[in-house]
Amino acid sequence: MRLTRYTDYAMRVLLYAGAQEDGRLSPISEISRAYDISQNHLMKVVNDLVNAGYLESVRGRFGGVRLARDAAEINVGAVVRHTEEGFDLVDCASCVIAPACGLTGALAEALAAFMRVLDGYSLADLLASRRDLGALLGISDPVGT
Amino acid sequence: MRLTRYTDYAMRVLLYAGAQEDGRLSPISEISRAYDISQNHLMKVVNDLVNAGYLESVRGRFGGVRLARDAAEINVGAVVRHTEEGFDLVDCASCVIAPACGLTGALAEALAAFMRVLDGYSLADLLASRRDLGALLGISDPVGT
Repeated sequence: MRLTRYTDYAMRVLLYAGAQEDGRLSPISEISRAYDISQNHLMKVVNDLVNAGYLESVRGRFGGVRLARDAAEINVGAVVRHTEEGFDLVDCASCVIAPACGLTGALAEALAAFMRVLDGYSLADLLASRRDLGALLGISDPVGT
Repeated sequence: MRLTRYTDYAMRVLLYAGAQEDGRLSPISEISRAYDISQNHLMKVVNDLVNAGYLESVRGRFGGVRLARDAAEINVGAVVRHTEEGFDLVDCASCVIAPACGLTGALAEALAAFMRVLDGYSLADLLASRRDLGALLGISDPVGT
Protein backbone atom coordinates (compact mmCIF):
# COMPACT_ATOMS: atom_id res chain seq x y z
CA MET A 1 0.00 0.00 0.00
CA ARG A 2 1.44 3.37 -0.98
CA LEU A 3 0.61 7.01 -1.18
CA THR A 4 1.62 8.69 -4.44
CA ARG A 5 5.11 10.11 -4.87
CA TYR A 6 3.36 13.44 -5.33
CA THR A 7 2.04 13.33 -1.76
CA ASP A 8 5.45 12.20 -0.51
CA TYR A 9 7.14 15.19 -2.18
CA ALA A 10 4.45 17.64 -1.04
CA MET A 11 4.97 16.59 2.58
CA ARG A 12 8.76 16.86 2.18
CA VAL A 13 8.46 20.41 0.86
CA LEU A 14 6.11 21.45 3.69
CA LEU A 15 8.43 19.86 6.27
CA TYR A 16 11.39 21.71 4.72
CA ALA A 17 9.61 25.04 4.77
CA GLY A 18 8.38 24.35 8.30
CA ALA A 19 11.87 23.49 9.55
CA GLN A 20 13.16 26.95 8.55
CA GLU A 21 13.36 29.94 10.81
CA ASP A 22 9.96 31.63 10.63
CA GLY A 23 9.58 33.58 7.41
CA ARG A 24 12.90 32.55 5.85
CA LEU A 25 12.56 31.72 2.15
CA SER A 26 13.67 28.34 0.79
CA PRO A 27 14.83 28.33 -2.83
CA ILE A 28 13.56 25.28 -4.71
CA SER A 29 17.17 24.51 -5.70
CA GLU A 30 17.98 24.18 -1.99
CA ILE A 31 15.04 21.83 -1.30
CA SER A 32 15.99 19.82 -4.39
CA ARG A 33 19.58 19.39 -3.15
CA ALA A 34 18.58 18.54 0.41
CA TYR A 35 16.28 15.69 -0.64
CA ASP A 36 18.13 14.73 -3.83
CA ILE A 37 14.96 15.21 -5.88
CA SER A 38 15.00 16.89 -9.30
CA GLN A 39 13.86 20.52 -9.42
CA ASN A 40 11.44 19.61 -12.22
CA HIS A 41 9.65 17.14 -10.00
CA LEU A 42 9.49 19.64 -7.16
CA MET A 43 8.32 22.57 -9.29
CA LYS A 44 4.89 21.10 -10.02
CA VAL A 45 4.36 20.15 -6.39
CA VAL A 46 5.46 23.59 -5.16
CA ASN A 47 3.18 25.42 -7.62
CA ASP A 48 0.29 23.27 -6.49
CA LEU A 49 1.01 23.99 -2.80
CA VAL A 50 1.21 27.72 -3.57
CA ASN A 51 -2.11 27.63 -5.43
CA ALA A 52 -3.70 25.67 -2.58
CA GLY A 53 -2.60 28.32 -0.08
CA TYR A 54 -0.10 26.19 1.83
CA LEU A 55 3.00 28.00 0.57
CA GLU A 56 3.76 31.52 -0.58
CA SER A 57 6.31 32.16 -3.25
CA VAL A 58 8.64 35.11 -3.70
CA ARG A 59 10.24 35.45 -7.13
CA GLY A 60 13.69 36.64 -7.99
CA ARG A 61 17.32 35.89 -7.25
CA PHE A 62 16.80 35.74 -3.50
CA GLY A 63 13.33 34.25 -3.83
CA GLY A 64 11.89 30.97 -2.71
CA VAL A 65 8.94 29.58 -0.82
CA ARG A 66 7.78 29.67 2.79
CA LEU A 67 4.71 28.49 4.68
CA ALA A 68 1.71 30.68 3.92
CA ARG A 69 0.13 29.83 7.29
CA ASP A 70 1.28 28.77 10.69
CA ALA A 71 2.33 25.10 10.71
CA ALA A 72 -0.33 24.46 13.35
CA GLU A 73 -2.94 25.58 10.78
CA ILE A 74 -1.85 23.05 8.14
CA ASN A 75 -3.78 19.81 8.60
CA VAL A 76 -2.02 16.68 7.35
CA GLY A 77 -5.26 14.92 6.38
CA ALA A 78 -6.31 17.93 4.30
CA VAL A 79 -2.95 18.03 2.50
CA VAL A 80 -3.13 14.30 1.70
CA ARG A 81 -6.72 14.65 0.42
CA HIS A 82 -5.49 17.48 -1.81
CA THR A 83 -2.40 15.73 -3.20
CA GLU A 84 -3.67 12.16 -3.65
CA GLU A 85 -5.21 11.54 -7.05
CA GLY A 86 -7.83 9.25 -5.66
CA PHE A 87 -8.59 6.84 -2.90
CA ASP A 88 -9.67 3.86 -4.97
CA LEU A 89 -7.74 1.27 -3.01
CA VAL A 90 -8.67 -1.40 -5.52
CA ASP A 91 -10.00 -1.13 -9.06
CA CYS A 92 -13.74 -1.48 -8.44
CA ALA A 93 -14.53 0.48 -11.62
CA SER A 94 -13.46 -2.43 -13.82
CA CYS A 95 -14.86 -5.15 -11.57
CA VAL A 96 -18.05 -7.02 -12.43
CA ILE A 97 -19.01 -7.77 -8.81
CA ALA A 98 -18.79 -4.16 -7.58
CA PRO A 99 -22.59 -3.82 -7.03
CA ALA A 100 -22.70 -6.71 -4.55
CA CYS A 101 -19.13 -6.79 -3.22
CA GLY A 102 -18.62 -6.46 0.53
CA LEU A 103 -14.96 -5.47 0.08
CA THR A 104 -15.94 -1.99 -1.12
CA GLY A 105 -17.59 -1.11 2.17
CA ALA A 106 -14.83 -2.66 4.30
CA LEU A 107 -12.15 -0.70 2.44
CA ALA A 108 -14.14 2.53 2.69
CA GLU A 109 -14.42 2.03 6.44
CA ALA A 110 -10.68 1.27 6.73
CA LEU A 111 -9.79 4.35 4.65
CA ALA A 112 -12.00 6.54 6.84
CA ALA A 113 -10.13 5.26 9.92
CA PHE A 114 -6.82 6.01 8.19
CA MET A 115 -7.79 9.56 7.29
CA ARG A 116 -9.29 10.20 10.74
CA VAL A 117 -5.81 9.66 12.20
CA LEU A 118 -4.15 12.04 9.71
CA ASP A 119 -6.89 14.61 10.35
CA GLY A 120 -5.66 14.64 13.94
CA TYR A 121 -2.19 15.85 12.95
CA SER A 122 -0.96 19.29 11.94
CA LEU A 123 2.32 20.08 10.22
CA ALA A 124 3.45 21.54 13.55
CA ASP A 125 3.02 18.10 15.17
CA LEU A 126 5.28 16.56 12.52
CA LEU A 127 7.87 19.27 13.22
CA ALA A 128 8.25 18.35 16.89
CA SER A 129 11.96 17.63 16.27
CA ARG A 130 12.37 20.80 14.24
CA ARG A 131 15.98 21.45 15.29
CA ASP A 132 17.00 17.91 14.28
CA LEU A 133 15.09 18.19 11.00
CA GLY A 134 16.91 21.43 10.22
CA ALA A 135 20.28 19.80 10.95
CA LEU A 136 19.47 16.78 8.73
CA LEU A 137 18.42 19.14 5.94
CA GLY A 138 21.55 21.28 6.29
CA ILE A 139 19.45 24.32 7.08
CA SER A 140 21.67 26.95 8.63
CA ASP A 141 20.47 28.52 11.81
CA PRO A 142 21.24 32.22 11.50
CA VAL A 143 20.35 33.10 15.08
CA GLY A 144 22.63 30.39 16.42
CA THR A 145 20.05 28.90 18.76
CA MET B 1 -3.63 5.64 -2.28
CA ARG B 2 -3.84 2.13 -3.63
CA LEU B 3 -3.39 -1.47 -2.67
CA THR B 4 -1.43 -3.55 -5.16
CA ARG B 5 -3.16 -5.20 -8.09
CA TYR B 6 -1.97 -8.47 -6.57
CA THR B 7 -4.11 -7.89 -3.48
CA ASP B 8 -7.03 -6.83 -5.68
CA TYR B 9 -6.83 -10.07 -7.68
CA ALA B 10 -6.34 -12.22 -4.56
CA MET B 11 -9.53 -10.80 -3.05
CA ARG B 12 -11.42 -11.32 -6.32
CA VAL B 13 -10.37 -14.98 -6.45
CA LEU B 14 -11.38 -15.57 -2.82
CA LEU B 15 -14.73 -13.85 -3.42
CA TYR B 16 -15.28 -15.99 -6.51
CA ALA B 17 -14.49 -19.21 -4.65
CA GLY B 18 -16.62 -18.06 -1.73
CA ALA B 19 -19.61 -17.28 -3.97
CA GLN B 20 -19.72 -20.88 -5.20
CA GLU B 21 -21.86 -23.62 -3.78
CA ASP B 22 -19.86 -25.13 -0.91
CA GLY B 23 -17.12 -27.38 -2.20
CA ARG B 24 -17.71 -26.73 -5.91
CA LEU B 25 -14.46 -26.30 -7.85
CA SER B 26 -13.79 -23.14 -9.88
CA PRO B 27 -11.51 -23.60 -12.90
CA ILE B 28 -9.06 -20.69 -13.25
CA SER B 29 -10.30 -20.23 -16.83
CA GLU B 30 -13.78 -19.55 -15.43
CA ILE B 31 -12.50 -16.99 -12.91
CA SER B 32 -10.41 -15.39 -15.65
CA ARG B 33 -13.46 -15.01 -17.92
CA ALA B 34 -15.73 -13.72 -15.16
CA TYR B 35 -13.38 -10.88 -14.19
CA ASP B 36 -11.80 -10.38 -17.64
CA ILE B 37 -8.32 -10.90 -16.16
CA SER B 38 -5.67 -12.96 -17.97
CA GLN B 39 -5.11 -16.52 -16.69
CA ASN B 40 -1.40 -15.80 -16.43
CA HIS B 41 -2.02 -13.00 -13.99
CA LEU B 42 -4.38 -15.16 -11.95
CA MET B 43 -2.15 -18.23 -11.89
CA LYS B 44 0.51 -16.67 -9.68
CA VAL B 45 -2.09 -15.29 -7.28
CA VAL B 46 -3.92 -18.63 -7.10
CA ASN B 47 -0.71 -20.61 -6.44
CA ASP B 48 0.16 -18.18 -3.67
CA LEU B 49 -3.29 -18.52 -2.08
CA VAL B 50 -3.00 -22.32 -2.28
CA ASN B 51 0.43 -22.26 -0.62
CA ALA B 52 -0.85 -19.92 2.07
CA GLY B 53 -3.68 -22.33 2.89
CA TYR B 54 -6.57 -20.14 1.70
CA LEU B 55 -7.44 -22.25 -1.35
CA GLU B 56 -7.14 -25.90 -2.24
CA SER B 57 -6.48 -26.96 -5.77
CA VAL B 58 -7.63 -30.08 -7.63
CA ARG B 59 -5.78 -30.88 -10.83
CA GLY B 60 -7.14 -32.35 -14.02
CA ARG B 61 -9.79 -31.70 -16.63
CA PHE B 62 -12.53 -31.11 -14.08
CA GLY B 63 -10.16 -29.50 -11.61
CA GLY B 64 -10.07 -26.04 -10.16
CA VAL B 65 -9.82 -24.29 -6.81
CA ARG B 66 -12.09 -23.92 -3.81
CA LEU B 67 -11.79 -22.38 -0.36
CA ALA B 68 -9.55 -24.46 1.91
CA ARG B 69 -11.36 -23.16 5.01
CA ASP B 70 -14.74 -21.81 5.89
CA ALA B 71 -15.15 -18.22 4.64
CA ALA B 72 -15.72 -17.16 8.26
CA GLU B 73 -12.19 -18.38 9.05
CA ILE B 74 -10.51 -16.24 6.39
CA ASN B 75 -9.58 -12.87 7.87
CA VAL B 76 -9.39 -9.99 5.39
CA GLY B 77 -6.61 -8.17 7.27
CA ALA B 78 -4.49 -11.34 7.28
CA VAL B 79 -4.98 -11.81 3.52
CA VAL B 80 -4.00 -8.18 2.82
CA ARG B 81 -0.90 -8.47 5.05
CA HIS B 82 0.03 -11.59 3.07
CA THR B 83 -0.52 -10.17 -0.42
CA GLU B 84 0.78 -6.60 -0.03
CA GLU B 85 4.48 -6.28 -0.78
CA GLY B 86 4.99 -3.70 1.89
CA PHE B 87 3.32 -0.97 3.83
CA ASP B 88 5.81 1.83 3.20
CA LEU B 89 3.23 4.49 2.47
CA VAL B 90 5.95 6.95 1.49
CA ASP B 91 9.59 6.35 0.60
CA CYS B 92 11.26 7.00 3.96
CA ALA B 93 14.20 4.76 3.02
CA SER B 94 15.55 7.34 0.57
CA CYS B 95 14.66 10.38 2.69
CA VAL B 96 17.31 12.30 4.59
CA ILE B 97 14.97 13.49 7.35
CA ALA B 98 13.63 10.04 8.29
CA PRO B 99 15.36 9.97 11.72
CA ALA B 100 13.55 13.11 12.91
CA CYS B 101 10.42 13.14 10.76
CA GLY B 102 7.06 13.17 12.49
CA LEU B 103 5.25 11.95 9.37
CA THR B 104 6.61 8.41 9.86
CA GLY B 105 4.83 7.99 13.18
CA ALA B 106 1.59 9.61 11.98
CA LEU B 107 1.46 7.30 8.95
CA ALA B 108 2.22 4.22 11.07
CA GLU B 109 -0.65 5.15 13.37
CA ALA B 110 -2.99 5.72 10.41
CA LEU B 111 -1.99 2.40 8.84
CA ALA B 112 -2.62 0.57 12.12
CA ALA B 113 -6.13 2.08 12.21
CA PHE B 114 -6.68 0.97 8.60
CA MET B 115 -5.58 -2.61 9.28
CA ARG B 116 -7.57 -2.78 12.52
CA VAL B 117 -10.74 -2.27 10.47
CA LEU B 118 -9.81 -5.00 7.95
CA ASP B 119 -8.90 -7.34 10.84
CA GLY B 120 -12.55 -7.05 11.88
CA TYR B 121 -13.81 -8.54 8.60
CA SER B 122 -13.89 -12.14 7.40
CA LEU B 123 -14.43 -13.29 3.84
CA ALA B 124 -17.89 -14.44 4.98
CA ASP B 125 -18.74 -10.81 5.88
CA LEU B 126 -17.79 -9.71 2.35
CA LEU B 127 -20.02 -12.45 0.93
CA ALA B 128 -23.18 -11.16 2.61
CA SER B 129 -24.77 -10.73 -0.85
CA ARG B 130 -23.54 -14.12 -1.98
CA ARG B 131 -26.51 -14.84 -4.26
CA ASP B 132 -26.08 -11.50 -6.05
CA LEU B 133 -22.33 -12.03 -6.34
CA GLY B 134 -22.94 -15.42 -7.92
CA ALA B 135 -25.36 -13.91 -10.42
CA LEU B 136 -22.92 -11.12 -11.36
CA LEU B 137 -20.16 -13.72 -11.84
CA GLY B 138 -22.38 -15.96 -13.96
CA ILE B 139 -22.01 -18.79 -11.47
CA SER B 140 -24.71 -21.35 -12.13
CA ASP B 141 -26.74 -22.52 -9.18
CA PRO B 142 -27.09 -26.30 -9.59
CA VAL B 143 -29.60 -26.71 -6.77
CA GLY B 144 -31.83 -24.02 -8.18
CA THR B 145 -32.24 -22.15 -4.92
